[in-house]
Amino acid sequence: MADNAKLTRAADNIRVLAASMVEKAKSGHPGGAMGGADFINVLYTEFLRYDPDDLRYPFRDRLFLDPGHMSPMLYSTLALAGNYTMDDLKAFRQWGSCTPGHPEVDVLRGVENTSGPLGQGHAMALGAAIAERFMVARFGQWQAHKTYAYISDGAVQEEISQGVGRIAGHLGLSNLIMYYDSNNIQLSTKVDEVDTEDVGAKYKAWGWNVLHVDGQSVDEIRAALRTAGAETERPTIIIGRTVMGKGAVAADGTSYENKVSTHGQPLSAAGADIAATVKHLGGDPENPFTVFEESKEIYAARREELRAWVKAQKAVEAEWRSANKELARKLDIFLAGELPPIDYKSIEMKADSATRAASATVLGVLAERVENMIVASADLSNSDKTDGFLKKTKAFTKGDFSGKFFQAGVSELTMACIMNGMALHGGVIPACGTFFVFSDYMKPAVRLSALMHLHVIYIWTHDSFRVGEDGPTHQPIEHEAQIRLMEHLRNHAGERSMVVLRPADGEETIAAWRLALEEKRPVALILSRQNIKNLPALAASRREEAAQLAKGAYIVADTAKPDVVMVASGSEVATLVEGAGLLAQEGIKARIVSVPSEGLFRDQPQSYQESVLPAGIARYGMTSGLPVTLQGLVGEKGFIHGHDMFGFSAPYTVLDKEFGYNGETVAAEVKKLLGRA
Amino acid sequence: MADNAKLTRAADNIRVLAASMVEKAKSGHPGGAMGGADFINVLYTEFLRYDPDDLRYPFRDRLFLDPGHMSPMLYSTLALAGNYTMDDLKAFRQWGSCTPGHPEVDVLRGVENTSGPLGQGHAMALGAAIAERFMVARFGQWQAHKTYAYISDGAVQEEISQGVGRIAGHLGLSNLIMYYDSNNIQLSTKVDEVDTEDVGAKYKAWGWNVLHVDGQSVDEIRAALRTAGAETERPTIIIGRTVMGKGAVAADGTSYENKVSTHGQPLSAAGADIAATVKHLGGDPENPFTVFEESKEIYAARREELRAWVKAQKAVEAEWRSANKELARKLDIFLAGELPPIDYKSIEMKADSATRAASATVLGVLAERVENMIVASADLSNSDKTDGFLKKTKAFTKGDFSGKFFQAGVSELTMACIMNGMALHGGVIPACGTFFVFSDYMKPAVRLSALMHLHVIYIWTHDSFRVGEDGPTHQPIEHEAQIRLMEHLRNHAGERSMVVLRPADGEETIAAWRLALEEKRPVALILSRQNIKNLPALAASRREEAAQLAKGAYIVADTAKPDVVMVASGSEVATLVEGAGLLAQEGIKARIVSVPSEGLFRDQPQSYQESVLPAGIARYGMTSGLPVTLQGLVGEKGFIHGHDMFGFSAPYTVLDKEFGYNGETVAAEVKKLLGRA
Repeated sequence: MADNAKLTRAADNIRVLAASMVEKAKSGHPGGAMGGADFINVLYTEFLRYDPDDLRYPFRDRLFLDPGHMSPMLYSTLALAGNYTMDDLKAFRQWGSCTPGHPEVDVLRGVENTSGPLGQGHAMALGAAIAERFMVARFGQWQAHKTYAYISDGAVQEEISQGVGRIAGHLGLSNLIMYYDSNNIQLSTKVDEVDTEDVGAKYKAWGWNVLHVDGQSVDEIRAALRTAGAETERPTIIIGRTVMGKGAVAADGTSYENKVSTHGQPLSAAGADIAATVKHLGGDPENPFTVFEESKEIYAARREELRAWVKAQKAVEAEWRSANKELARKLDIFLAGELPPIDYKSIEMKADSATRAASATVLGVLAERVENMIVASADLSNSDKTDGFLKKTKAFTKGDFSGKFFQAGVSELTMACIMNGMALHGGVIPACGTFFVFSDYMKPAVRLSALMHLHVIYIWTHDSFRVGEDGPTHQPIEHEAQIRLMEHLRNHAGERSMVVLRPADGEETIAAWRLALEEKRPVALILSRQNIKNLPALAASRREEAAQLAKGAYIVADTAKPDVVMVASGSEVATLVEGAGLLAQEGIKARIVSVPSEGLFRDQPQSYQESVLPAGIARYGMTSGLPVTLQGLVGEKGFIHGHDMFGFSAPYTVLDKEFGYNGETVAAEVKKLLGRA
Repeated sequence: MADNAKLTRAADNIRVLAASMVEKAKSGHPGGAMGGADFINVLYTEFLRYDPDDLRYPFRDRLFLDPGHMSPMLYSTLALAGNYTMDDLKAFRQWGSCTPGHPEVDVLRGVENTSGPLGQGHAMALGAAIAERFMVARFGQWQAHKTYAYISDGAVQEEISQGVGRIAGHLGLSNLIMYYDSNNIQLSTKVDEVDTEDVGAKYKAWGWNVLHVDGQSVDEIRAALRTAGAETERPTIIIGRTVMGKGAVAADGTSYENKVSTHGQPLSAAGADIAATVKHLGGDPENPFTVFEESKEIYAARREELRAWVKAQKAVEAEWRSANKELARKLDIFLAGELPPIDYKSIEMKADSATRAASATVLGVLAERVENMIVASADLSNSDKTDGFLKKTKAFTKGDFSGKFFQAGVSELTMACIMNGMALHGGVIPACGTFFVFSDYMKPAVRLSALMHLHVIYIWTHDSFRVGEDGPTHQPIEHEAQIRLMEHLRNHAGERSMVVLRPADGEETIAAWRLALEEKRPVALILSRQNIKNLPALAASRREEAAQLAKGAYIVADTAKPDVVMVASGSEVATLVEGAGLLAQEGIKARIVSVPSEGLFRDQPQSYQESVLPAGIARYGMTSGLPVTLQGLVGEKGFIHGHDMFGFSAPYTVLDKEFGYNGETVAAEVKKLLGRA
């Protein structure tokens, strides 16, 4: 343990680096980083346990940063720890650098999560803390670790703090330790101009252990982290009163601490002086990108401590492995995110089911086969049919994480962020369910799943106006087109950032679940509330044919020289089958194409795409979403039957009739399209 | 005041009606409605003040229901009050009825808000309570009224409760009285299986007055409502412990109270017996849709009390009007949602500004001219430039609502719901700002703005990857295509449910603000962070030409017999101008079309559309969003330069270069399109 003066010197080093990064980039947030330096410095030099020689070590403590704009603090600290060079810091916020404006997950450099959208960071920490409990419940206390979250006023004010506060308290997650950097300054005002709540009392109401410290006091920070580390019943929040722009001064030495103006712009733009500030903090204004000797010393010492810790940990692990060979094999499977062999052929699927019911059937099998899978629902398990999984396991409760189900309560966004945190932690495959219309609430987290390339599975049921009686607030209309935009958007690896699957019957639902498990990016399943007649089998068994779902689109019914190619996804495909029957009676030959994912289809070879949707044949599309949902498949010359108005409260059979979703309409519209009406 | 036995009899009447509605519809939520009946009955018969002969009376108390699935309770109560017939109740959840599954705003029948998405209802109540304070601050205490909110476990768990709790407490809104119907049962579990927080302590931490009652006790409910009504410093939450399925029994008389199964399905489906329940509650199983004599008596008496109250109120108003003629005229303008004459021609607009800066300039004028406008920001006023408005007024604070600015703190969804509540209250024109990427957080509320046809203005700045250094978490890519889906979606009046405007320069920004104020539906302004060169004027002044923005699309640069028509919105239009200059040097003639709103454009006469985008001429589109953003305008034969990947952290000028957003790229791509490369 270094003496406090040296620790403060290292914290000053972080302040100098953070302020200088922002100054050099002419962009960023220096003030908060300067106030938070003392805490993160103590955390990194005395508490956070990880393998400095293998940052991926699975049983490391995690730090999830919530206020991504405080990235200069994180990068500077990680630079002292040896993960970034001074050149990296100088390239802050520049093209091609590894120090983007808001941190992007980069485990090999010690960045556990992408942050920026306030509140999501600490919700991801909660997800990681749950995943840790899940792993420990299966593999033993030896791999227990802490998850730290660092939050600011943004996370306290963001709505999602309600979900995080409630859930962490309810589950008694003492492995979650959160530091609230409270400096009474937010981007546009002082905090007390918009928020006079008693934050400590609120977290107590949620069942947390609440500690208060002077966020610039090494002793108080250290004592609080020790108390938090010893807690066994409750998550801890350490509320640190800090000073925005700690150490910032003007050229004449006037303090620039505690100013709103230093929150979101370079110190010089706020009226402070960067050279004077660097000097005031013991740095060299001519060469501010320097690691102080004291920092080198402290961080080197910590590195040795960590190496000793890792060595001891690995010895324990080795002993455990040799005594628990079967379990050790399972652990490796979990850590690799591998799947057991699953006999999809033998799943007993009831014909003509709702696809949510088909999903429940598959989930029942997965609950028995896939031990590293966690399923969640936002208080709709009996409607979104994730209870197919729940019935074979049990929900997490305080002190008991031996089950595999997470009852999230009514908090869709928090649930989605928790899934992201679980996926970041690793060892588990998370999936979560709710109504499709509420995907709106989850979009901010879905976007981060996609940006971070996480394997998270979204189960969205009640997929169209056929929700029926619940009415327009519960009927998705624009949502399929909306979420499919994520198939258009590519991640930084150049892949479509997400796969969105809307299976057409129970058999496609089996194939969709298979794909959802085997993919390594976010996958959404869009499922029906109402029963759907199974599609006919062309030649082989329907199950074998439905496996073509993996190609994104495939022919489900065909004829020699079709007059029309009809496309749809989900339950509209069965309506096309009805329509094709009527057309056949009039000698009109139709091909039917099911398109569960246009994105996957567009990634097939051009020859396959052309074989399914040949040029020169009229195209007809039917969607219960906006017509534009099928525009890319049907094209300008074709005709799309869609729905472009908020729905109405009525039984879905009535809505189908009123909105013209039946074989008769299909036949009539196709005839008109072909000029045979 | 009726005696308690009679009141309970009326509450039983509500229980009978609610259970019978769900039973008849074979769909809905009976249990909660039966538990909540006692509270809503006391509220309607002793507290809620309105004009029974004119439900639009502007100075009425409001009740905002949050759990929309409890609609049977609301409709049954309003039926006793005379606003629904028994036939209306029998048509619950049926096509064409006025009793949809979740309530849809219908002031003429006493329904103040659309509900269903949990949590939004009480956030709208908060908006109404703020609007009331705004009005009272200007026109006097005589028009003060209460806003009641009715919430359930869903609203307590939904993330948005954090925003509502914080803001109402911070602003000391004693005019907001919220009833929490706490029955320990939610859709899929008992509440204590997912939530063990101390709700009362949490609201105390937010600065609320917290009261506890037995929600089946008339005396306790009445006493609490009196205490709440007398409170002057804090909002009040009355936590009522209630019994799910109060009075439900099986055929053999066994109680069916306190069961999860009665939450979301007809009592008979849960195993209870509807006839036995109706009988147990004093109704006639043969004819359950009956208003009891006691109900008639109590509600008739209340009607007379209310008439006397309204008469007295109107006398006070008349006296005030004659003593304050000028102010009375202003009040009528506010209540009608009218605008003063605004001289848009004389606005001094700096050339080549960022459109967010142009917006600030307009907002400065509006702050002085439009007295009934409220502007809000989610802690970004100095970035989203709503501070252009703020600088001419001041923010609301506890006890002082004489300003016109609302500092929402970091809580985008709550802010948007508050806007909806303000618009529902009336008297004000609400607008709110934040970064465009955070429109993701607001979508659930935007959808309700659209469904309710509310005049709410969304100011979304930082509109593309040109956000720059903040990186991909802050750079909208898919968002323009996403929010424009709301232009495709029609409201129940058949109109496009929303107008989305992305102005191309400062002059279009003036026109966009004008349209935003004059429209009566939700309008979004999508504005740039970076400076944009003004578009050239064709013939008249640029300001006059930019007024054509109201047509959705118009020609900004033209030539005889163009070789290509180029389309874009926002800052990409200026890039097309650059490209056209280069093309002209090579003898290629280009027309440039600015399309601030494809929706408005498609509502123009076909002849206008064809005059702007004539058939037979090659089309080129440029968008900083996904290519699909312009698909409907450019068509299959044209070429679209879009961006289909998450952005990167770097200065925007670097990103423009890397992603090919410049005149050179435009010229090269157009030449290729024309086969002249």
